[in-house]
Amino acid sequence: MSKLDFVLEEIVTANRILANEGIVDSFGHVSARHPDNPKHYLLSRARAPERIERADLVEYKLDGTAIDDGGRAPYMERFIHGAIYEARPDVQAVVHNHSPSVIPFGVTPKKLKPFLHMCANIGHEVPVWDCRTKFGDTTLLVTDMKMGRDLAKTLGARPSTLMRGHGATVVGRSVRHAVFISVYLELAAKLQMQAMPMGKIKYLSRGEVQQIIDRVNDYTLNRAWENWARRAGREMQPQDAA
Amino acid sequence: MSKLDFVLEEIVTANRILANEGIVDSFGHVSARHPDNPKHYLLSRARAPERIERADLVEYKLDGTAIDDGGRAPYMERFIHGAIYEARPDVQAVVHNHSPSVIPFGVTPKKLKPFLHMCANIGHEVPVWDCRTKFGDTTLLVTDMKMGRDLAKTLGARPSTLMRGHGATVVGRSVRHAVFISVYLELAAKLQMQAMPMGKIKYLSRGEVQQIIDRVNDYTLNRAWENWARRAGREMQPQDAA
Amino acid sequence: MSKLDFVLEEIVTANRILANEGIVDSFGHVSARHPDNPKHYLLSRARAPERIERADLVEYKLDGTAIDDGGRAPYMERFIHGAIYEARPDVQAVVHNHSPSVIPFGVTPKKLKPFLHMCANIGHEVPVWDCRTKFGDTTLLVTDMKMGRDLAKTLGARPSTLMRGHGATVVGRSVRHAVFISVYLELAAKLQMQAMPMGKIKYLSRGEVQQIIDRVNDYTLNRAWENWARRAGREMQPQDAA
Amino acid sequence: MSKLDFVLEEIVTANRILANEGIVDSFGHVSARHPDNPKHYLLSRARAPERIERADLVEYKLDGTAIDDGGRAPYMERFIHGAIYEARPDVQAVVHNHSPSVIPFGVTPKKLKPFLHMCANIGHEVPVWDCRTKFGDTTLLVTDMKMGRDLAKTLGARPSTLMRGHGATVVGRSVRHAVFISVYLELAAKLQMQAMPMGKIKYLSRGEVQQIIDRVNDYTLNRAWENWARRAGREMQPQDAA
Repeated sequence: MSKLDFVLEEIVTANRILANEGIVDSFGHVSARHPDNPKHYLLSRARAPERIERADLVEYKLDGTAIDDGGRAPYMERFIHGAIYEARPDVQAVVHNHSPSVIPFGVTPKKLKPFLHMCANIGHEVPVWDCRTKFGDTTLLVTDMKMGRDLAKTLGARPSTLMRGHGATVVGRSVRHAVFISVYLELAAKLQMQAMPMGKIKYLSRGEVQQIIDRVNDYTLNRAWENWARRAGREMQPQDAA
Repeated sequence: MSKLDFVLEEIVTANRILANEGIVDSFGHVSARHPDNPKHYLLSRARAPERIERADLVEYKLDGTAIDDGGRAPYMERFIHGAIYEARPDVQAVVHNHSPSVIPFGVTPKKLKPFLHMCANIGHEVPVWDCRTKFGDTTLLVTDMKMGRDLAKTLGARPSTLMRGHGATVVGRSVRHAVFISVYLELAAKLQMQAMPMGKIKYLSRGEVQQIIDRVNDYTLNRAWENWARRAGREMQPQDAA
Repeated sequence: MSKLDFVLEEIVTANRILANEGIVDSFGHVSARHPDNPKHYLLSRARAPERIERADLVEYKLDGTAIDDGGRAPYMERFIHGAIYEARPDVQAVVHNHSPSVIPFGVTPKKLKPFLHMCANIGHEVPVWDCRTKFGDTTLLVTDMKMGRDLAKTLGARPSTLMRGHGATVVGRSVRHAVFISVYLELAAKLQMQAMPMGKIKYLSRGEVQQIIDRVNDYTLNRAWENWARRAGREMQPQDAA
Repeated sequence: MSKLDFVLEEIVTANRILANEGIVDSFGHVSARHPDNPKHYLLSRARAPERIERADLVEYKLDGTAIDDGGRAPYMERFIHGAIYEARPDVQAVVHNHSPSVIPFGVTPKKLKPFLHMCANIGHEVPVWDCRTKFGDTTLLVTDMKMGRDLAKTLGARPSTLMRGHGATVVGRSVRHAVFISVYLELAAKLQMQAMPMGKIKYLSRGEVQQIIDRVNDYTLNRAWENWARRAGREMQPQDAA
């Protein structure tokens, strides 16, 4: 199995997992950097994540041009992905979603911060990108590279960012890593909404967050991935398959 | 396939989707204007949305008289539909539901307003119709054209209205459009209840709402419809089928 | 089909519906008055509602003595049922549950009152029975007729009562009626918890509650029953079957 | 069937139940003391609870050394189990989880206390163990016997303890008992978060909690176990099977 085949199968599984775990609804998308060409990325045609098949996946240049779309309409927001791959050579996968619990943190003054160890991978504090600041009234969609690059700037070197009135974007060093963070970003937000009315919260310390981020490994990611994949009707590929 | 056949299948699918997505329980209903006769509409006999089959659909005049009920008992509240088709020539489909999260907004002073881009299609602000104002103590059901017309007046030119102690009514330029707005009306209400205790909310600006409403198209509606239909055990009909 | 056969099948279906709709967990029970002998009632042996089969149903005298238990262990709390049938000749069915959203209303000063028309059947205001008042520290279980009669006194002529730290008891003029009220009691509680932080609530007026209670009929009950029964893998029996 | 066989099957069923009831996600674990050797315990290799098969179970000494791991990687946090079996001869089973509703009680000043009779088995008040107190910044994982013993000290003679920023640990006199308490610990936390904004709560009195704890028996545990096991696709073993 080629590295490319491996990654394409991972993207299909990722889409099914995110739909099945309630992280994406009919919208939202997952991409991976092309394993053989870091200036290209792989992303489905415009389709609900729960429905995506291998044949829906298209190869794009970082600027969002399809190599061969074969008549398959692209996501209008693919620029989120290209702009981040351009800015972040360390990133191998990007998830964009409208995960329900994160939305209130994008439109209110409360900062999303982890207090559950599983959620430390979202980063010390999740920033909010507001497209209105630079682009004024829009449909809120990231429809060109200019907007994508502005989003990437807010993301910076972090694992995740919120988008005001829109959702979140999460990055990882692999598809499994980005999916893992996306699932626990939703949980972090849900738990924080429940905990805030209960008094002062003991968030994870900076040292705790850092230790957890530094030590997250395939041992952890694969335990979740195997489970989520099966629940979504997919098998986990062995990692040496690629 | 005739336009009528197409619309009848859409109504069945809409009922199954709304039940499956938790927007209707055993009550609530969806209608479409008759594609060949704008003075008639199509609506199921009185039955839970999740159970509706093609054979349950009946053709009604705007005043709620069945063309041929074939012994099939009608919804007592069909006047909601007729009164709106009468007042709004632009409307091709109507959804009435008791979507759980919208109920608190019908009985408290808080105004339901969108802050998530997907929810802009519910309109700038959702009004509340209170049947008690004009009709005093009733069962709250819309049981004649007089009540239906009063509700239609509150709806005005908007996409949706709440009904105090009862639910919501949503309209669209197609069955898919009305279903789409209904699903995101529930989400808008749910998210707003979560966000309100978190401080001042950045709602979508009027310009953002308007841009999103102006640009919503089949490209967007169909992505969701394909997904929701499959989840509910139905296939998406090609739109040129009609 | 005899009236007795009809009622026994209704009880099995009711148990499955209540489990499937989240109104009972592994505990909780449903009974019906014996259709041919108003001094007897029908109730399952001690078993989780989701598992109950026709063969689990036992006939009891009002004092809780089994006519023929055939070695089937009874619910320790069957006295709830007997004491209510004794006090309320109008009651034909009783549901006891630990429906999650009602629990907070049993232990805090907030009164549960309907504001959604579907919930009017729970009554104008739901009282709370606190076993500690008369019986001091107990396991909170209703383990004899003395406790059952005290609970029945709090219930009075109403459709439902809460039980502090324990759950709710609901009565109806048929199994379908009691199940219907139980489902909407849970919804009423859930919605009221959401609406309370949103400002002054417009509850249903006394006149509205009364009109809805007076007009609820088989037309309404059966629409929900058909749907809930099918979801729980059961068919709706025709009512003239008995 | 040997006692060992019985217990091994119980552990598999417990894992499936806890996953199916939402008490564990891809992490969390259940162990039982070895029925023939109180200095050993039985626990799965590192795997998501929903996926665990009989062949995944490994026998460990109290210090966490595997008797024969057969290449099966252990949970890094197995020391939770060993340290508790060491300190508590009465304990026959241990559950460790990240049950969502308990998390906010571990990071805020609110004490988790039961007010629903079904939840009395969690104990009079649930303590919180904070690993930072003694061990400073860590990944929050219990990765050696020193940490495990410190946790066991906070647990003391109680049925359950929370772990700050991490989850909960629950013990029982049997696998069924520990699972039962785990499910109702989640419910207790969920209900308390709902009830707290509703005014002063009537918690169970000390006498009520004690009576319920003293009287919980197989009659109760098995009613839930039969139901949960079936829902999770497993059968309940007869207890005299061992």
